[in-house]
Amino acid sequence: MNFFLNWQEHAGSQVEKFYKTALWQGDHVMVGLNCLEVNQVQSVHAHQGADKFYFVLEGSGRFRVGDEERQAEAGALVLAPAGISHGVVNNGNVRLSLLVAIAPPFK
Amino acid sequence: MNFFLNWQEHAGSQVEKFYKTALWQGDHVMVGLNCLEVNQVQSVHAHQGADKFYFVLEGSGRFRVGDEERQAEAGALVLAPAGISHGVVNNGNVRLSLLVAIAPPFK
Repeated sequence: MNFFLNWQEHAGSQVEKFYKTALWQGDHVMVGLNCLEVNQVQSVHAHQGADKFYFVLEGSGRFRVGDEERQAEAGALVLAPAGISHGVVNNGNVRLSLLVAIAPPFK
Repeated sequence: MNFFLNWQEHAGSQVEKFYKTALWQGDHVMVGLNCLEVNQVQSVHAHQGADKFYFVLEGSGRFRVGDEERQAEAGALVLAPAGISHGVVNNGNVRLSLLVAIAPPFK
């Protein structure tokens, strides 16, 4: 396998729904990339039994985690512990790219 | 708990050994920050039963994963699957800051 990746080479976009790709799935964690074009939305949802976090790579978005809602931009880490609802809207004016990790991965 | 963090607020340095701090420990994953000053080293080691990845936040370093050795800089994702040895040297001229995730976390 390739141990060294650069997220920029995996970025993409989709018109119908935000772009989503897996970068790596190990036995214990999945690392992926989500790219939301301006105004695209990841609806609020929750993962039972799996912790998730986002790391904002570029752009800015309005995140909701549990009862909290916050604007977060490049450099922010957004935590979504197992069972806690979370979602995000790209309310900025450039693409919002997010590194996402989910542990354990969905099998 | 605080769902929104910024890694810059958690960066630090240590003279004796590279700086290491946990940002969050969930049931299924630990997210941390490692800061290596110029010439500091994280010796090659392996985690049995736990997947790990690094995301390079700033700086540049020489990583070793398994039998592969590679220079990686800001924006690179470096994967260390369970049982695979890995380590890094800050051979650059600025601080090397790494977001690190380990799943499952050490208990």
